[in-house]
Amino acid sequence: MKTDIQIAQEAVMQPITEVAKRLGISSDCLEQYGKYKAKLPYKLMEDLKDKPNGKLVLVTATNPTPAGEGKTTITVGLGQALCKMGKNAVIALREPSLGPCMGIKGGAAGGGYAQVVPMEDINLHFTGDIHAIGAANNLLASMIDNHIHQGNSLKIDTRTITWKRCVDLNDRALREIVIGLGGALNGVPRQDGFMITVASEIMAILCLANDLMDLKQKLGNIIIGYNTAGEPVTARDLHAEGAMTTLLKEAIKPNLVQTLENTPVIMHGGPFANIAHGCNSIMATKLALKLGDIVVTEAGFGADLGAEKFLDIKCRKAGLVPDAIVLVTTIRALKYNGGVAKEDLKEVCMDALRAGFSNLEKHIENLQKYQVPVVVTLNAFVTDTEEEISFVQSACEAKGCDFATANVWEKGGEGGLLLAQKLIEVLETKPGSFKYLYEDNLSIEEKITCIAKEIYGAKQVAFEPAAKKALEKVKALGLSHLPVCMAKNQYSLSDDPRALGRPQGFTTTVREIRISAGAGFIVALTGSVMTMPGLPKKPAAEVIDIDDKGIVTGLF
Amino acid sequence: MKTDIQIAQEAVMQPITEVAKRLGISSDCLEQYGKYKAKLPYKLMEDLKDKPNGKLVLVTATNPTPAGEGKTTITVGLGQALCKMGKNAVIALREPSLGPCMGIKGGAAGGGYAQVVPMEDINLHFTGDIHAIGAANNLLASMIDNHIHQGNSLKIDTRTITWKRCVDLNDRALREIVIGLGGALNGVPRQDGFMITVASEIMAILCLANDLMDLKQKLGNIIIGYNTAGEPVTARDLHAEGAMTTLLKEAIKPNLVQTLENTPVIMHGGPFANIAHGCNSIMATKLALKLGDIVVTEAGFGADLGAEKFLDIKCRKAGLVPDAIVLVTTIRALKYNGGVAKEDLKEVCMDALRAGFSNLEKHIENLQKYQVPVVVTLNAFVTDTEEEISFVQSACEAKGCDFATANVWEKGGEGGLLLAQKLIEVLETKPGSFKYLYEDNLSIEEKITCIAKEIYGAKQVAFEPAAKKALEKVKALGLSHLPVCMAKNQYSLSDDPRALGRPQGFTTTVREIRISAGAGFIVALTGSVMTMPGLPKKPAAEVIDIDDKGIVTGLF
Repeated sequence: MKTDIQIAQEAVMQPITEVAKRLGISSDCLEQYGKYKAKLPYKLMEDLKDKPNGKLVLVTATNPTPAGEGKTTITVGLGQALCKMGKNAVIALREPSLGPCMGIKGGAAGGGYAQVVPMEDINLHFTGDIHAIGAANNLLASMIDNHIHQGNSLKIDTRTITWKRCVDLNDRALREIVIGLGGALNGVPRQDGFMITVASEIMAILCLANDLMDLKQKLGNIIIGYNTAGEPVTARDLHAEGAMTTLLKEAIKPNLVQTLENTPVIMHGGPFANIAHGCNSIMATKLALKLGDIVVTEAGFGADLGAEKFLDIKCRKAGLVPDAIVLVTTIRALKYNGGVAKEDLKEVCMDALRAGFSNLEKHIENLQKYQVPVVVTLNAFVTDTEEEISFVQSACEAKGCDFATANVWEKGGEGGLLLAQKLIEVLETKPGSFKYLYEDNLSIEEKITCIAKEIYGAKQVAFEPAAKKALEKVKALGLSHLPVCMAKNQYSLSDDPRALGRPQGFTTTVREIRISAGAGFIVALTGSVMTMPGLPKKPAAEVIDIDDKGIVTGLF
Repeated sequence: MKTDIQIAQEAVMQPITEVAKRLGISSDCLEQYGKYKAKLPYKLMEDLKDKPNGKLVLVTATNPTPAGEGKTTITVGLGQALCKMGKNAVIALREPSLGPCMGIKGGAAGGGYAQVVPMEDINLHFTGDIHAIGAANNLLASMIDNHIHQGNSLKIDTRTITWKRCVDLNDRALREIVIGLGGALNGVPRQDGFMITVASEIMAILCLANDLMDLKQKLGNIIIGYNTAGEPVTARDLHAEGAMTTLLKEAIKPNLVQTLENTPVIMHGGPFANIAHGCNSIMATKLALKLGDIVVTEAGFGADLGAEKFLDIKCRKAGLVPDAIVLVTTIRALKYNGGVAKEDLKEVCMDALRAGFSNLEKHIENLQKYQVPVVVTLNAFVTDTEEEISFVQSACEAKGCDFATANVWEKGGEGGLLLAQKLIEVLETKPGSFKYLYEDNLSIEEKITCIAKEIYGAKQVAFEPAAKKALEKVKALGLSHLPVCMAKNQYSLSDDPRALGRPQGFTTTVREIRISAGAGFIVALTGSVMTMPGLPKKPAAEVIDIDDKGIVTGLF
């Protein structure tokens, strides 16, 4: 069996100028990065502003399991299938971080015959967006420490600094550090730490910015810590937002690439799906809607985190209205949710399938609350049986959902035709009436409680003392109107990652509240969130190699 | 008077495909990064390998002073002038680091009407080379700490780790840090520090690599520290060189840009000129020699550091033979060397000029030891008088040098015609017989002593105990055949930065020896070397800004 990188390296890519041409973008308007990647200039959105929008389709999934749901693979394969049917489809995806690539996870551009290419470049620096975000993040950090070193006229209380440095790698030794050692010439000692770059608030800001000036405004709003009077100190107070925006002037331009079948992909931004909202950029999605008749996009983790944030944060900030939601699951993931151990997932077990369906069922009910039509798709595995598939189909249809299987990993767009057909039918016949889960005017506590009860199925919400205190601060700062960004484990609807299926009667405990004043949301943490991964015993980096022709191996 | 960035923004750039075409490079062969930057693929060198080389001209300078010598400006202006005369000239330069740009120094792409453009892009991320070097550097660091965390089977003695992390910013608080705090999950605590990325050994390696496989070989040779038995531990021992090379697969490709007058510039690599050799990459210079009939390149700091390393390290490693050397100075810099205070440099003072000429004289004598013809050029200022200029001209000619004034800052290529004419005359009539200052088979002590006596004019060399001990290690590791990379203050020929002019009878003291086994040289430090700059009281970053059209201001 061929590996993803082998399949990707055999792809017959079109020059990116050709891909752009099919979208009506002249090569003159394109900023090429090599032959197969390009950035789209600011003025393109301006030129297209009167064009009507295409349909917006969100791809999301049941809770992640070790069995894998293949959400990105389905997103890519669905886009390919729509193009195969003659539709003008555009895929809008997040761009991958280098860290996991060198660690354990491998690349993040789909799989099998549903991949985005050039796969190596996308996984390795791409067009430099994430490094630019890292530079802007670390410039702000160095300006903070320089301000303190040069006399600290803003009276920053160094114990309250929340702004961390970052690097786009998995590097656990940088999680907790002490900086400024070695005497007066080296600054003022304090505790600090690094995050992986994609966890930086700047990544969230870039993805939620509507244009360059909005980006600058939001960067200026970043709260880096507090002064000795307890008042917030912002990036604007440090006069950092102009240089930070300047560093991001190219990174804010959406990137154009293609799938193995030459379907256009706008790949831009990739914030964490826990402490941030886990979606590609607003600018990319909006541009895709001008360029394509159908735009297929995705959100991180399962629907309880990814779709909720896509719908309640991204759509709200951007004024976007989704036309349909594709909810991805697998027979194996449902069985895993029904209690089957990872090693036994190949065996048929209808009881477990029925039990595990409860997870899918809850996500269906959740998404229906937003009044957007839902199509469930089964990402096919060779071990799936007729009986299993037809059980899931009937159960979904009984919940008022449409259903189609998909086999895009093995067959590319061809394997996504059933799903594409069903989706088009839904788009043409079932208009939604999208509404947010909660309104702006609720308090942050009420918003959190609403999400926990309505989406997670919690019986109640407990706020720990630190969270309560922080909520007072949010109120005092006049930020209660912001949406909430939940940071929860991705594996269960509850706080407990082992509680699979559809847990009931549990309490969601909010331990900590963080203010992302730049991004414009309040983060509620229900457990500890890792913002700097570590490398495994044998990192992927140990096997990645390149030959004298520049051919990369070991990237997966 | 217009600022550099204003002049740069008014430039009428040619599409980079046009610039390439004039060099005989088809657009098919070009990897564009936007409309005005491109990378040149591996195969171009292969395609051109049988083409005869052009002439190689090094631009260097007297010791740097606050008055400024304008070495890069002359390099750019000379290239422009040669093109104006109908010559096929190519300029080969270093690429600038982001750190100084956000600090105090501003950009580094020439000045006035002798600049490389697009100026903002070149100073801000450019084509991502330096970020890629940072990623490769920090990947190795994370693999070191992960190896220790996962059981340390190589028995690395954490107290001996010399490999530091890096960031391409001025950030003094990261000079000395403690990492791995917060318990067993966060790795093993140890002392560490960050350098600015351009100080990373990887930058030196990239610049000294002859091709992709040579790069991998050299990266594998990096010594990151020692095991408990005192034996070196290399990047190869950690299986890191494959992934590091993969991360650098684009960064190793030379970048093509242009001057304000559309002269082709190959801008690639930018290592420190103290702990590294301070020249652009070998691959870029070699490619430029295939593409141009005359290649104008430069080296960091004054001729005692930059030219010595260019000639003894870079030329040796690459088998390059320089055809002429342009030695840049100014009347102001000579007066400063003759004892005039910075604020009085506008006044005529023939005595000081005569005294300060001793600095230029010593550099002329030094360069003549390499048996390459020298052309001295005076970078003109409006305050220069006829008398001053003719004194310098006569004094240079008396030393057997050619001489020409240049006024490229104000007049661009037009202002460099005298110099270009003189240079062509020299190239056509004065063949050199280049030889290195020292041979490989001398010991490291002998090489250091040779450089200190012959180039700096030292009476003797003292080795401190730590240096002596390290030299034993170099011998034991079998690395005595490597060339020496001197790290010395740039302002004086001696160890004492205040000893201007031509100091005599001094002792050069070697305090420390560092082994750059990857780059392939032994660094001899004669004082403390700063590898992580700090930001000034009012960083340039505070005034850098961008408007809604993406126009950058405050970059200089």
